[in-house]
Amino acid sequence: MRIEVLPYPGNQPNREQSDKTFVVLDILRATSTIVTALANGATEVIPVADPSEAIQLAKNLGEDQCLTGGERGGLPIPGLNLGNSPLEYTREVVGGKKAALCTTNGTVAIRWSQSGKRVLIGSFLNLPAVVEALRQEDDVLLVCSGRNGSLALEDFVCAGMIVHRLVTLFGKKKKLSLSDSAVLSRLAYQNMEKTKGLPEGLAETAHGKDLTELGLGEDILYCAQVGLYDVVPVYESGRVRV
Amino acid sequence: MRIEVLPYPGNQPNREQSDKTFVVLDILRATSTIVTALANGATEVIPVADPSEAIQLAKNLGEDQCLTGGERGGLPIPGLNLGNSPLEYTREVVGGKKAALCTTNGTVAIRWSQSGKRVLIGSFLNLPAVVEALRQEDDVLLVCSGRNGSLALEDFVCAGMIVHRLVTLFGKKKKLSLSDSAVLSRLAYQNMEKTKGLPEGLAETAHGKDLTELGLGEDILYCAQVGLYDVVPVYESGRVRV
Repeated sequence: MRIEVLPYPGNQPNREQSDKTFVVLDILRATSTIVTALANGATEVIPVADPSEAIQLAKNLGEDQCLTGGERGGLPIPGLNLGNSPLEYTREVVGGKKAALCTTNGTVAIRWSQSGKRVLIGSFLNLPAVVEALRQEDDVLLVCSGRNGSLALEDFVCAGMIVHRLVTLFGKKKKLSLSDSAVLSRLAYQNMEKTKGLPEGLAETAHGKDLTELGLGEDILYCAQVGLYDVVPVYESGRVRV
Repeated sequence: MRIEVLPYPGNQPNREQSDKTFVVLDILRATSTIVTALANGATEVIPVADPSEAIQLAKNLGEDQCLTGGERGGLPIPGLNLGNSPLEYTREVVGGKKAALCTTNGTVAIRWSQSGKRVLIGSFLNLPAVVEALRQEDDVLLVCSGRNGSLALEDFVCAGMIVHRLVTLFGKKKKLSLSDSAVLSRLAYQNMEKTKGLPEGLAETAHGKDLTELGLGEDILYCAQVGLYDVVPVYESGRVRV
């Protein structure tokens, strides 16, 4: 198995990458929110580019059938039903419904990843299930959403935990080929576990500090939980479903 | 001082970035080669996009005045005077001459960096001089060349050593603001120093292994030397000079 980690989406993936299985990670908070919504019974999440697309989509699908959600600068967008906090996406709110989601980095990364052979949605919340789903793959690209074209440590550390678990799982039984970025992500994960633990480590990232300042520290603690759900959402034909 | 590390050039730098001082790093081997050439008396290095541009430039400038050099797949390019090994760029060969250089990642990253307020060329070979040159700056972007749009550990570790030295230099005297990527690069550097040392660590990167397979292991040992030269090349108007 070959594993590479992309610190942030770059230019269009080349043909070689379309043979890979992609896992998109936006820990704070888009992919954590999508995993939560689907685990809580949402029928699908539709990543959209901007709020007006979300509103139009909900109108087309029926506003009782499709919620709208998202953030700009971490805060809810006026006119949408929900923000980007996973804590809002409870079973009572999203069960049986669709959600059109518009976020700064995560939904961009998901749409960027459409050329992957398969595109999975990952987070700490469903990490063990994602690792299990990757066992049979030959070529994996972990796509970190990053922040505005820069590396975001929380995504990179989550990628590193996936790498670490695959290395531990296979041991010497299967040959793993790790890219430099995969090696580095594993180091980043191991260092965070050793020095601070995930909840505190995530809170001390640049993005974590910004969310704490916005009064959203509870979201970080929620997103740092490993294995709360066992769904593995798949992005296909513009929709994320389990 | 704000410090950010870019694991590889992304989309076009935005306006904000043009207020930053950029340092371009391509340890194996373009920026190590450029530093060597200029330290050995080359009058300027001109990064070009492809071999034909190098040959045309040498014709225009006079072939006794301007050498051509570069690599594709790590190997010298037929028709050019020199490869991309810094060991070729001796005082006897390059002293008093210009060199048009064409490499896969490094010259691309240098040209990409043209919107920086100042653009410096860094490597382990001139690292202490680069750190000294950055002391007075407020906003620094360390641009790793990477490999074909992926992170290359050798560049990232060099960035981390620059970050580490600036942190050590300033201590508590000056407020440093490190991006997530800068924090991570420092961890990568400290880990390599602690576990393997630079020469062995660089040789074990993906790029290092490829060069060793090509019989170019001596280049890696050369590029791992810290502070061999005190030049700080500057890229301006399409040319690198000291």
